[in-house]
Amino acid sequence: MHNLLENLIRKLGRLPGLGPRSARRTVLFLLKNRDRLMLPLAMELHDVAGRVRSCVDCGNLDVVNQCSICSDSQRDRSRICVVEDVGDLWAMERAAVYRGLYHVLGGTLSALDGRGPEDLHIGRLLQRAKSANMQEVILALSATVDGQTTAHYIGEKLANMPLEITRLAHGMPVGGELDYLDDGTLAQALKARAKLEI
Amino acid sequence: MHNLLENLIRKLGRLPGLGPRSARRTVLFLLKNRDRLMLPLAMELHDVAGRVRSCVDCGNLDVVNQCSICSDSQRDRSRICVVEDVGDLWAMERAAVYRGLYHVLGGTLSALDGRGPEDLHIGRLLQRAKSANMQEVILALSATVDGQTTAHYIGEKLANMPLEITRLAHGMPVGGELDYLDDGTLAQALKARAKLEI
Repeated sequence: MHNLLENLIRKLGRLPGLGPRSARRTVLFLLKNRDRLMLPLAMELHDVAGRVRSCVDCGNLDVVNQCSICSDSQRDRSRICVVEDVGDLWAMERAAVYRGLYHVLGGTLSALDGRGPEDLHIGRLLQRAKSANMQEVILALSATVDGQTTAHYIGEKLANMPLEITRLAHGMPVGGELDYLDDGTLAQALKARAKLEI
Repeated sequence: MHNLLENLIRKLGRLPGLGPRSARRTVLFLLKNRDRLMLPLAMELHDVAGRVRSCVDCGNLDVVNQCSICSDSQRDRSRICVVEDVGDLWAMERAAVYRGLYHVLGGTLSALDGRGPEDLHIGRLLQRAKSANMQEVILALSATVDGQTTAHYIGEKLANMPLEITRLAHGMPVGGELDYLDDGTLAQALKARAKLEI
């Protein structure tokens, strides 16, 4: 196999979820669709790498310095939803249930991976939380040990500000079956049970 | 999400084995590795799309008009191994058990998908099989209905030439367990049983 192909396959194989086998399949698929897919993909990768940047305020990805969410005057500027990464922000936006601002931490605290507070965008969050009309910070972090540790750390930093600090509810996933729930979720779902609306 | 990102995610999501979710993850991963992975990948995709072509003789992918296998004087020029696509050729080369030439058909005959003989590179194979010192054509095609139909079709076309026409053996995969074999393979493996070498 020519070096050019080997190098491309090696690079594609480093993408998450693609091993060497699927990288080979991908290269053959791309070569069969050069004009329709391979060349446009090359161009867009180059473009996105050059133009997309992190928003200076919230850490969202956009082509402008202040992202389209932070600069949208229609959004509720009294609420910040704190998420781990941009993928989580996208998931919230797809659900279309939230109209406030965001703050992307860039991960969670992790003793194992050696990530401390200085590795996350926490300083900027504290600044933003201090702004005059801020009312609520929603900590939409993973329900993992690291996620919850991070939520508590940030919660303590914000405790002396006149803010509501909230987290996402725990409970049964919509469409989920009780039999498949883990004990922790079941316990939380029972504890936070709500009155049936008829 | 910005259009640039949406378009890139849509393009990546069309690659085999990548859905929208993994395409999103991939874009975030690439943006975290712009200089180390994203820009080199863009460049290599562009390069490969522009420079890699199919060998005029065998259909292998290379950057020269006659591929490095066809032009390698060390290879046995009396044998052609016929495969469905370049991925199969790569698999044969990785196994490093064959030193002859190849011929890439570009698929199999398929009544369902409407692929007839004119859609495969069969004409060039017949020409090559006629060359003076050719001794054997190995039909290394899938053991599927379409693969075997194609093998029989090509076998008939070659029947009047002074050639051995062979196919890959059927039987137990090395490392396989009898209990997991399908009946067809088991039947073939029994029928083609060989003397135990002690």
